[in-house]
Amino acid sequence: MAHINLENGMPGILGPMLFSPHTAAPMNLLANALMQSDEGLSRGERELIATYVSSQNDCFFCQTIHGAIASDYLGDEDWSFVKSVKDNYEETTLSPKLKSLLAIAGSVQKGGKNVTTEQVEAAKANGASDLEIHDTVLIAAAFCMFNRYVDGLATTAPTDPDIYRKRAKNVIANGYSAKGTTY
Amino acid sequence: MAHINLENGMPGILGPMLFSPHTAAPMNLLANALMQSDEGLSRGERELIATYVSSQNDCFFCQTIHGAIASDYLGDEDWSFVKSVKDNYEETTLSPKLKSLLAIAGSVQKGGKNVTTEQVEAAKANGASDLEIHDTVLIAAAFCMFNRYVDGLATTAPTDPDIYRKRAKNVIANGYSAKGTTY
Repeated sequence: MAHINLENGMPGILGPMLFSPHTAAPMNLLANALMQSDEGLSRGERELIATYVSSQNDCFFCQTIHGAIASDYLGDEDWSFVKSVKDNYEETTLSPKLKSLLAIAGSVQKGGKNVTTEQVEAAKANGASDLEIHDTVLIAAAFCMFNRYVDGLATTAPTDPDIYRKRAKNVIANGYSAKGTTY
Repeated sequence: MAHINLENGMPGILGPMLFSPHTAAPMNLLANALMQSDEGLSRGERELIATYVSSQNDCFFCQTIHGAIASDYLGDEDWSFVKSVKDNYEETTLSPKLKSLLAIAGSVQKGGKNVTTEQVEAAKANGASDLEIHDTVLIAAAFCMFNRYVDGLATTAPTDPDIYRKRAKNVIANGYSAKGTTY
């Protein structure tokens, strides 16, 4: 049961977002601006960074829905690739650039000052642009917010993977929104 | 020096916000919706929670500007009250309700799952409404984002307190915005 009476029975972040629509609106605008951009990082790469950070924050709802979205973008039908990234991205077939950006995201998750000049130099040497480094830091930072919003209020989350698969297709087609959402 | 070339010389969060205006816009909308609301928590109380979380995250820029805003709202001219809240809020003259909300904010700062049912029950027993608990969790979560954005990119920050005092009056009068800002 959630810590407060959300009065709407919606799972995950949608419960508090429907409870407080005037703060939900800019949060969804931010998610769309940050996650549904094609400049620099691809949408699949952005969702992969979000999933990794949500996994490091142990947020079941966020790592499952964003993992489902990443899997859909990346053609990872059984979610095995996304799982391997969460488990140990260094051992995956991801590019050196993505691996060095995930290292930065992992440092941001622990706290902003954990990002080192060496990590940033490594990302640049692997071909990351300033925009890609910026977006990585902001995606990691933003999911430290979204994850804490979801878990700090003890929201509930569905366990059926098909619910997340369906929701992922909805987000990919229509963007992030707390309005008119069906689970 | 910042980790990426921000090309604008602006301090703190304004550097990356001017670098990426399409993500800055919803972040400022969120700050205004969350911090400049009079329903439930006062604006001074909201800024106090933001300052405390930013202090726990060791973010100099955020704790100083939001501390300056809180001090202005609360008539704390020499910043001594805000400093005492950051140092040990339990020993201050804050109400039991605010102290129990700061305890929740401190748990959110560590990670959403650190918030306990006991903390929430204590806040409710001290008179906190569901909306006030919700807003406390979201303020704490949002500053875990803002702090990481500022420090994850290694932005610079002024040290002169008068710069923050002036900026605080600007935010109080005009709201949060990355546009037309002078320091």
